[in-house]
Amino acid sequence: MRHLSVDLNCDMGEGFGAWHMGNDVELLHHVTSVNIACGFHAGDPSTMKKTVRLALEKGVAIGAHPGLPDLAGFGRREMAVSAEEVYDMVVYQVGALMGFARAEGARLHHVKPHGALYNMAATNAALAEAIATAVSRIDAELILYGLAGSELLKAGEKYSLRTASEVFADRTYQPDGTLTPRRQLNALITNQEEAVQQVLRMVKEGKVQPQQGTELSIKADTICLHGDGQHALSFAKLIRERLTAEGIHFAAI
Amino acid sequence: MRHLSVDLNCDMGEGFGAWHMGNDVELLHHVTSVNIACGFHAGDPSTMKKTVRLALEKGVAIGAHPGLPDLAGFGRREMAVSAEEVYDMVVYQVGALMGFARAEGARLHHVKPHGALYNMAATNAALAEAIATAVSRIDAELILYGLAGSELLKAGEKYSLRTASEVFADRTYQPDGTLTPRRQLNALITNQEEAVQQVLRMVKEGKVQPQQGTELSIKADTICLHGDGQHALSFAKLIRERLTAEGIHFAAI
Amino acid sequence: MRHLSVDLNCDMGEGFGAWHMGNDVELLHHVTSVNIACGFHAGDPSTMKKTVRLALEKGVAIGAHPGLPDLAGFGRREMAVSAEEVYDMVVYQVGALMGFARAEGARLHHVKPHGALYNMAATNAALAEAIATAVSRIDAELILYGLAGSELLKAGEKYSLRTASEVFADRTYQPDGTLTPRRQLNALITNQEEAVQQVLRMVKEGKVQPQQGTELSIKADTICLHGDGQHALSFAKLIRERLTAEGIHFAAI
Amino acid sequence: MRHLSVDLNCDMGEGFGAWHMGNDVELLHHVTSVNIACGFHAGDPSTMKKTVRLALEKGVAIGAHPGLPDLAGFGRREMAVSAEEVYDMVVYQVGALMGFARAEGARLHHVKPHGALYNMAATNAALAEAIATAVSRIDAELILYGLAGSELLKAGEKYSLRTASEVFADRTYQPDGTLTPRRQLNALITNQEEAVQQVLRMVKEGKVQPQQGTELSIKADTICLHGDGQHALSFAKLIRERLTAEGIHFAAI
Repeated sequence: MRHLSVDLNCDMGEGFGAWHMGNDVELLHHVTSVNIACGFHAGDPSTMKKTVRLALEKGVAIGAHPGLPDLAGFGRREMAVSAEEVYDMVVYQVGALMGFARAEGARLHHVKPHGALYNMAATNAALAEAIATAVSRIDAELILYGLAGSELLKAGEKYSLRTASEVFADRTYQPDGTLTPRRQLNALITNQEEAVQQVLRMVKEGKVQPQQGTELSIKADTICLHGDGQHALSFAKLIRERLTAEGIHFAAI
Repeated sequence: MRHLSVDLNCDMGEGFGAWHMGNDVELLHHVTSVNIACGFHAGDPSTMKKTVRLALEKGVAIGAHPGLPDLAGFGRREMAVSAEEVYDMVVYQVGALMGFARAEGARLHHVKPHGALYNMAATNAALAEAIATAVSRIDAELILYGLAGSELLKAGEKYSLRTASEVFADRTYQPDGTLTPRRQLNALITNQEEAVQQVLRMVKEGKVQPQQGTELSIKADTICLHGDGQHALSFAKLIRERLTAEGIHFAAI
Repeated sequence: MRHLSVDLNCDMGEGFGAWHMGNDVELLHHVTSVNIACGFHAGDPSTMKKTVRLALEKGVAIGAHPGLPDLAGFGRREMAVSAEEVYDMVVYQVGALMGFARAEGARLHHVKPHGALYNMAATNAALAEAIATAVSRIDAELILYGLAGSELLKAGEKYSLRTASEVFADRTYQPDGTLTPRRQLNALITNQEEAVQQVLRMVKEGKVQPQQGTELSIKADTICLHGDGQHALSFAKLIRERLTAEGIHFAAI
Repeated sequence: MRHLSVDLNCDMGEGFGAWHMGNDVELLHHVTSVNIACGFHAGDPSTMKKTVRLALEKGVAIGAHPGLPDLAGFGRREMAVSAEEVYDMVVYQVGALMGFARAEGARLHHVKPHGALYNMAATNAALAEAIATAVSRIDAELILYGLAGSELLKAGEKYSLRTASEVFADRTYQPDGTLTPRRQLNALITNQEEAVQQVLRMVKEGKVQPQQGTELSIKADTICLHGDGQHALSFAKLIRERLTAEGIHFAAI
């Protein structure tokens, strides 16, 4: 019998200055890795330091969560950035978070792009390569998190990075393996039981049923937990309980 | 006979996006170390990468030049930031530049605060300690550049960092060893011969004559060259010629 | 018998992008004027429009709330800005909010500086005059809100603006009539009954007892309600009930 | 014989803080209207005030030049902004510049979107309508400048704004009347004589020859002069001389 292990990751440190977002302190009890905002879409230096320290206290793996330079849009609006600009903004942001990790005597574990940058890198090979190159040149030991089946993970493999295929419990999938865009109906799975069933199947069987068409093969190394919803905490607990009950172990990659 | 050696440093990479400042390419032929803006008062990721690469091509020592978060004010306006905020902004900015250095297989050589942060750290011991702590925790091998005789250098020594005492050829000094503020008359030495004489004396004799009162002892490890004036280039050449003629060797620390 | 009327104002629209702050919708039921953030310390264009529309629906007077250009510090950190820079940043921000008022067919009612800008303008006559000049040149009908007894109100009178003396229910006063700085003990009056008594006395008798020394005369045209605390809403109701019970009428100036 | 008149407009005030761009003072002698950056892609409050004053001294018509919120990209990178966000950012920026105009006792004359916002509004009807609505609600007397034949001008007409069809001397055209994108070969007409011939023909005959295909009808109310090139000044003089020699009069609309 195969021993199944999966990572549960969550975006953190997504406040800015006087503004807070998410319940980082509570969620840290339930996740195995965190993606910390690096100042471009969210996160200021003080929030970054505090979040790195919180993650270290809990023994949770620390990743950088670089985004587009769009604070007002929370990095969710696609921008016509060049591959070179993407390389530059990833080096900058990963370096900045690495500063806080080094200052605490810790190491970064992974990099996961945020929002529109994540989505663009899922399908745009040039941007995906820019991110993979940036990560590999800063620290070739870093793990690259990306959408399962995406261009980003292909680029990571091309540049000899370890990669982690990310799946979503509460998002629906398209026949090509991409996520249904948020602005569409049925983009979100609001029924928690359905979400649990989807993620269980992805982790145990490596399968997911898209909105239309036949089921897809999917690799599930890490599950993305959304930290900013009302039910984030109860959903985190539910996923851990249900997957643990099925013999699945939670651990960072 | 003592062999005299001095560093000649210049701020670089102080453009932002479409805006340029200074003649970095030309000045790089004449300096032995550069302080690269890190995005808070100037410098964007693309400019940082480009400037790091230029410095490496010329074999010039690369330093981080962190500033206050004030792009519109070019980091020259003092802000009531706390020591903790200063620690955080220095870790962030030095980390970001370190990202570009690592990506090029290079190491950072030093850190020199910019503008109002430099001035505040010259006299405010708490802010000086925040900077020294930040630098020592990121990389204890980094050299801390600061105003000769300043609180910043004392803090650097306290935290066991190597320090470099910086002197200015074209700025006048106050009886307490601080620079005459720019808004005062006689803050700048516009006569190039006078500036050369002042810097020669600082390097050779360790003395400087302030605006009022008796001459001061001053340690001159590195000379600050202002890169944004019209005559920056000719002045750089003049300093190198005249000091070289006096047997002084130029090299990074 | 004198008919007593007082304004109750509250800062609003202090979110930014994806981040929210305060309970604007609920508080709007209780105040008679609002100060809307203009993008420098908080507030983005979309939040500004939405807040202007909410205030118009409730018939509440709309004011601009310009701050220092310091989003990460929420405009609470003093900056060494020149009088000319203050003039410029006030014209810019008031103009921007006026754009939204015009687009809704409405007029701005007042201007109240935010945070560190408010505090600096309370004691620094040059900055106070810069603000008053900016306001009077944009629209001489605008009312200038400022700390009772402050340089800002003196400057407003000098430039023939109508002014409103602002008092605080839940902040303690110093013998010179300024507020006890927030970082000091006893800066805040946390006992709601004490706060009500202080504000009642200011409005009815024109007196306030500072932390030390003898009681001061104080003019109370408008009461500042802090919108971001946990008890903001219940405190707003309490003030209105208690002052109304004493025959005081609430209305914008 | 028809009396021909044309406007010559130029972007101005596109510095930011310590950074300068363009030769505004000299160019102001040659243009009849200016588009002043409003802080999102370029332009800070101090630069805006100074530029408004310069334009008033020269008697040149003052327009707002709102852009995308992308200082690092100079507003040249398309962003996936919604129509509502575009409405909001235009109201904000036009309002801010209107503040400076009002403070000088002047009125705004027109609005011309900048860079990527200009290009997106040329072909995207929803964004074009958002801009036209914003302008008409702030001040229905404002003239809307846009690419000749664009969606932006159609939207302006729909909302009863006066519009100005803009043509380019030194850019080539596509068969659909849009400009050849800058990243393509032959986007720019570098031969000044060819540029003069193109603009002469557009103004006198209302015709332009695109890169491929048959000539197009084009309306030429205003000519865009690029202010940031090396030859901006000499080219401005050349256009004025040559068109004046052909009996064309230069005046704001």
